[in-house]
Amino acid sequence: MTGDELFSVDRLKRFCADVFVACGVGAGDAAVSADVLVSADARGIPSHGIARLGRYVNGLRTGLMLGGGDFDVLRESPVSLLVDAKGSLGAPVSKFAMDRVIEKAGVSGMAFACVNNSNHFGIAGYYAMMALERDMIGICMTNTAALGVPTFGRDAMFGTNPLAFAAPADKEKAFVLDMSTTVVTRGKLEVYDRLGKDLPSGWAVGKNGATAVKPGPLLDDMQHRRGGGIVPLGGEGEEFGGHKGFGLAVMVDIMTGVLSGSQFGADIFDSATSSARVSHCFGAMKTGLFQDPQEFRRSMDRMLHALRTAERAEGADRVYYAGLKEFEAEELAARDGIALPGKVVTGLRGTGAEFGLAL
Amino acid sequence: MTGDELFSVDRLKRFCADVFVACGVGAGDAAVSADVLVSADARGIPSHGIARLGRYVNGLRTGLMLGGGDFDVLRESPVSLLVDAKGSLGAPVSKFAMDRVIEKAGVSGMAFACVNNSNHFGIAGYYAMMALERDMIGICMTNTAALGVPTFGRDAMFGTNPLAFAAPADKEKAFVLDMSTTVVTRGKLEVYDRLGKDLPSGWAVGKNGATAVKPGPLLDDMQHRRGGGIVPLGGEGEEFGGHKGFGLAVMVDIMTGVLSGSQFGADIFDSATSSARVSHCFGAMKTGLFQDPQEFRRSMDRMLHALRTAERAEGADRVYYAGLKEFEAEELAARDGIALPGKVVTGLRGTGAEFGLAL
Repeated sequence: MTGDELFSVDRLKRFCADVFVACGVGAGDAAVSADVLVSADARGIPSHGIARLGRYVNGLRTGLMLGGGDFDVLRESPVSLLVDAKGSLGAPVSKFAMDRVIEKAGVSGMAFACVNNSNHFGIAGYYAMMALERDMIGICMTNTAALGVPTFGRDAMFGTNPLAFAAPADKEKAFVLDMSTTVVTRGKLEVYDRLGKDLPSGWAVGKNGATAVKPGPLLDDMQHRRGGGIVPLGGEGEEFGGHKGFGLAVMVDIMTGVLSGSQFGADIFDSATSSARVSHCFGAMKTGLFQDPQEFRRSMDRMLHALRTAERAEGADRVYYAGLKEFEAEELAARDGIALPGKVVTGLRGTGAEFGLAL
Repeated sequence: MTGDELFSVDRLKRFCADVFVACGVGAGDAAVSADVLVSADARGIPSHGIARLGRYVNGLRTGLMLGGGDFDVLRESPVSLLVDAKGSLGAPVSKFAMDRVIEKAGVSGMAFACVNNSNHFGIAGYYAMMALERDMIGICMTNTAALGVPTFGRDAMFGTNPLAFAAPADKEKAFVLDMSTTVVTRGKLEVYDRLGKDLPSGWAVGKNGATAVKPGPLLDDMQHRRGGGIVPLGGEGEEFGGHKGFGLAVMVDIMTGVLSGSQFGADIFDSATSSARVSHCFGAMKTGLFQDPQEFRRSMDRMLHALRTAERAEGADRVYYAGLKEFEAEELAARDGIALPGKVVTGLRGTGAEFGLAL
């Protein structure tokens, strides 16, 4: 384990794309998958970034993920699209679906797509943000392997089910909400486990449904589906609105798993021999349906400027609106590169070496 | 102050409608406004119910709310509608907008409406649920007077901004999420104030941005706009996801205030001489765009049945999915009537007496 090592954004994208191509993915799909992964690192969301490359490679090797880019449009209307991803990599089919949604919204004013039989697609915000330059509001959701426990329940019945919403501004950075609907994601529990720290009360419940504080046994129970999991945004019980986060998680599952005619809830899980087949939903809406688009962006500027310059709580550093930190991180990454932990670099070099590719 | 008194749903609706008519509201708009208000009581959400009638009457009397039902459609497309409510009562213009959205979605597959210059419209779920019988997903949002404090901030910069989402089921009760995007609403703080109880840590912050525990001084500071307010869903700071609730509240403000070309954020507030001019957003989407509608409802049944029969946490009573409690309350109200606290009944009788109307 060495310290952090710096890489340019372009170099990481080229490396990722080369690895995907070496795994049999077409050049275009490889480039999209690489762009989505490395964008997560650039935006300061390394949990969804290049550190996952090894898992993608494993998925492609074992056939749990297919790299062929062979997916079917099952239904279509001027405002909608249903796509069967046929087990392919998540990013290319998602980029395809959001491109089509934006194209349809350009003509019809708004459109939504559902994609089923898909795999991990990276950060939801990536696809929502594709709408911004067209003066559209962008929306993206996905269900995930079940890790979330209903309010007053004890078993995982839904995923961390992220929801992204992007709206364009003019001079300010765009508003880009990209959030899981559980309090935290599994990655956070894993970090606490590695550090040997107790979990804050209100993040997770154990297999009896009571507050879980020890991450190790909880993660083990979750992995073996013995019960327990992460609680919804709003925490345990109803006092702080946990039932609202529960509702949001189910809403995302309805817009993805149910609406796409696919699996949902506890039926989505990873095992040694199968990959969770997840579903996504993408939406775009022209701001011009309701407002002059330039006027919309100017109003957004006023709102976002007011929020980021709002009076701070005593001792607080700044008020950030959704997306602001990530855009700032992206600018720094473009200028200075992306710092990857030694452990991640070692993993990437190992993956590259298998294909004769140097990082 | 006497104990609870029972009234039939129909009787309360007739009384409310009669009062509205006596205030100069047309019979149709009066009936809609009464239906929305009393539906809140029937569904177990009395904070948005008939107890508000006095405020509506005051608004109509002082001209802060207009009862004329005179609103303008400013923009329209096959998938969209922008309506200027011109300061009218919230319920009639909202019913009008959602009716038009459903009509447009029936032809185009989906549609959204924005309404600006409006007033309190009751429970958001009422309008979202209008889509259910047409095999559509229904969506409704509204901004409200600013009461919510951004993560790491100290001043109210957005409302409790509720979000409703309804999806039809077959034999199960429909899924109806209807939630404010703050941890709690002001009504909860008022209840704690009346009981002389301290607030749970993580509901609200005072004018310096630190945790507020005394509801009295906080409510006074909020009313006089000296700072402080309710924190977003997810609580104070980022540890439990408060930044996510902050993002959701702003998302609702974008879809209502910004998209409708109206006021948003801290510019929305009530004063002695003015009523907050709020904006709403309504949406509907045919499930048949993606699935056979009957198949969609059957999948919803499987999901909702699994959730409501999920294993309970030790000591917990039941697992409720969003809307289930409210539908059960509505059935009880239809059978047994609605129990109103003596204080509310006294207020209603006083209001009725001014117009020669008996409850």
